[in-house]
Amino acid sequence: MERRRFLLGAAGAGVGAVGLSAPAIAQGAKYRWRLVSSYPKSLDMFFGAAELFADNVREATEGNIDISVYAAGEIVPAAQGLDAVSDGTVELCHTASNHYIGKDPTFAFGTTLPFGLNSRQQDAWLTEGGGQELLDKFYAKYNVRSFPCGNVGAQMGGWFRKEIKSIEDLAGLKFRIGGLAGQVIQKLGVVPQQIPAGDIYPALERGTIDAAEFVGPYDDEKLGFNKVAPYYYYPGWWEGNSTITLFMQSAIWDELPPHYQAIIKLAAARVNEWMQARYDDRNPAALRRLVAAGVQLRAFPDDMFEAGFTAAQEMFDEIAAQNADFKEIYDHVIAYRQQQYSWWQFAEHKYDDMMISALRRRR
Amino acid sequence: MERRRFLLGAAGAGVGAVGLSAPAIAQGAKYRWRLVSSYPKSLDMFFGAAELFADNVREATEGNIDISVYAAGEIVPAAQGLDAVSDGTVELCHTASNHYIGKDPTFAFGTTLPFGLNSRQQDAWLTEGGGQELLDKFYAKYNVRSFPCGNVGAQMGGWFRKEIKSIEDLAGLKFRIGGLAGQVIQKLGVVPQQIPAGDIYPALERGTIDAAEFVGPYDDEKLGFNKVAPYYYYPGWWEGNSTITLFMQSAIWDELPPHYQAIIKLAAARVNEWMQARYDDRNPAALRRLVAAGVQLRAFPDDMFEAGFTAAQEMFDEIAAQNADFKEIYDHVIAYRQQQYSWWQFAEHKYDDMMISALRRRR
Repeated sequence: MERRRFLLGAAGAGVGAVGLSAPAIAQGAKYRWRLVSSYPKSLDMFFGAAELFADNVREATEGNIDISVYAAGEIVPAAQGLDAVSDGTVELCHTASNHYIGKDPTFAFGTTLPFGLNSRQQDAWLTEGGGQELLDKFYAKYNVRSFPCGNVGAQMGGWFRKEIKSIEDLAGLKFRIGGLAGQVIQKLGVVPQQIPAGDIYPALERGTIDAAEFVGPYDDEKLGFNKVAPYYYYPGWWEGNSTITLFMQSAIWDELPPHYQAIIKLAAARVNEWMQARYDDRNPAALRRLVAAGVQLRAFPDDMFEAGFTAAQEMFDEIAAQNADFKEIYDHVIAYRQQQYSWWQFAEHKYDDMMISALRRRR
Repeated sequence: MERRRFLLGAAGAGVGAVGLSAPAIAQGAKYRWRLVSSYPKSLDMFFGAAELFADNVREATEGNIDISVYAAGEIVPAAQGLDAVSDGTVELCHTASNHYIGKDPTFAFGTTLPFGLNSRQQDAWLTEGGGQELLDKFYAKYNVRSFPCGNVGAQMGGWFRKEIKSIEDLAGLKFRIGGLAGQVIQKLGVVPQQIPAGDIYPALERGTIDAAEFVGPYDDEKLGFNKVAPYYYYPGWWEGNSTITLFMQSAIWDELPPHYQAIIKLAAARVNEWMQARYDDRNPAALRRLVAAGVQLRAFPDDMFEAGFTAAQEMFDEIAAQNADFKEIYDHVIAYRQQQYSWWQFAEHKYDDMMISALRRRR
């Protein structure tokens, strides 16, 4: 239905672009927009975040801003959401900015960086530390502005068919991992593989690949990786947080009345908090079920983390030497990371540390 | 000015209660409400959160909901905000629910519990884990409903004139600490003291007290405690997070049109995220300045944390045995805490742990 509506109504873009009056679209809305999600409906947390954003905006504007949400592939493929907003095909997309590092590695910062900030630190950097302004200066080249609109938190390191006891076990390992993380881990001897989510399970089962990273317990459980790769490693040091971004056409934003701009900002912030809270709420039970099903939890060896950190730093320095946009944001976020962890190690980290110990002693 | 306006306009309450047309109040607003903050303007993060909430609501409603924010003492004393909302004197307050444990210890849960959840876990519990519904069921007795509207994160343990090397050093120690935390720490031999913020410095200077806890680096720095008590301990295990609550008269909420309800919810969620992000952004620099000024950072000894944990558990069990409301929420949040930390120890905690180590090695 939604796909059909799009096909019929796709001739124009911008305000009132959808030419059909369909039940899902409010009568008399002042703005009718299309939002393309980079995710399938089966990833209910990611796709649901975009729907929640649309619902919140619709409610708060008495239906005056009516946003239809489309799953990956319905209008454009998953990794072309930004392009569709940038060229005016749709008004909005909900995506991970690091899907677009092929255009420019500077797109990584909006999502996360290997060995980057954790979820709260990323929020602080974006909203209070100047990060958002730096990103939007860069995004202006693509005619879009951005709002952090969801976070996964620190991800797991993925599913491995065999144990990894030291960095030497990584030599020649075929690991499904993409983006900058794949480029970093390649320096440790891994052979990174880019495989769509739906093809991971059979590849692991057949042994075409040795390991695969995806998200965390809640999403991973659905794909059943534990049946074919029993070792579940942590942490995913390439994603200490993973921010999802709402991109909007700059021209549409600029012409919006201030009260609608305010509502868009509030709704994005609400979804940003909601998605993290919902993952935090849902991950524990999913992990418990996985462990009950025989999953073996393992921490990555320290030498892998250390070597990865050094490799990442070298790679980022190389990119920064050639890319002024990257360098500007990289220097900013790396200084911020240093300040953040200098403080974080005390009240926050020690509190968690003591709580984890105290609860373990009482098990 | 604001005080005078209140004194003149205080005759009625509810919609349009403020009888004067003052420049700060939008002409033609459909709702004119008063919000009492439990904090002075000098605590700019706490007071500023209430102002940001009011600003966001005003913007998003085109001025149709116009909220005037009053500091502690302007309409009612700091710890009577809830009463003022409950009895209809004002429409809203922004306060810590645990200011009201004198009425019922069940008010503690909306803020935090000694050895309770961390900031993200509290968000998850409230918004996705069923915590908010439990709290609002209890708050209904007071004719209010609540919205989480700010968080401080894990607090510091406070300022000590002498080092605390083991739990034995706590015997007879006069420590400025209030609420349930004071009752717990009393079981460890401490003599808890309740002293207003403005009187802490002279009491520490004269040695009338031996130690004092307040908030964290950003707020503590302003009061200059480091000059009279050089040891700065962490973590404040009585406040692994500290949620600030927006309370609203239930009757006003119930009569609001859905789009205004939606905006109130979004604005509170935005402020909830903002306050945590801003503390996370501002604390590192404040701590750096404090350390540069000679402050000695110390972790509380493990035996104190362990003994405190046991003492808290005993105390909570005693309260729960006598208070059904307390018991219902206590059982829920304690089970939630167990689930949360069972997961938290892996991806989130290990990521931070490895990052802290890696950055230390590179200093």
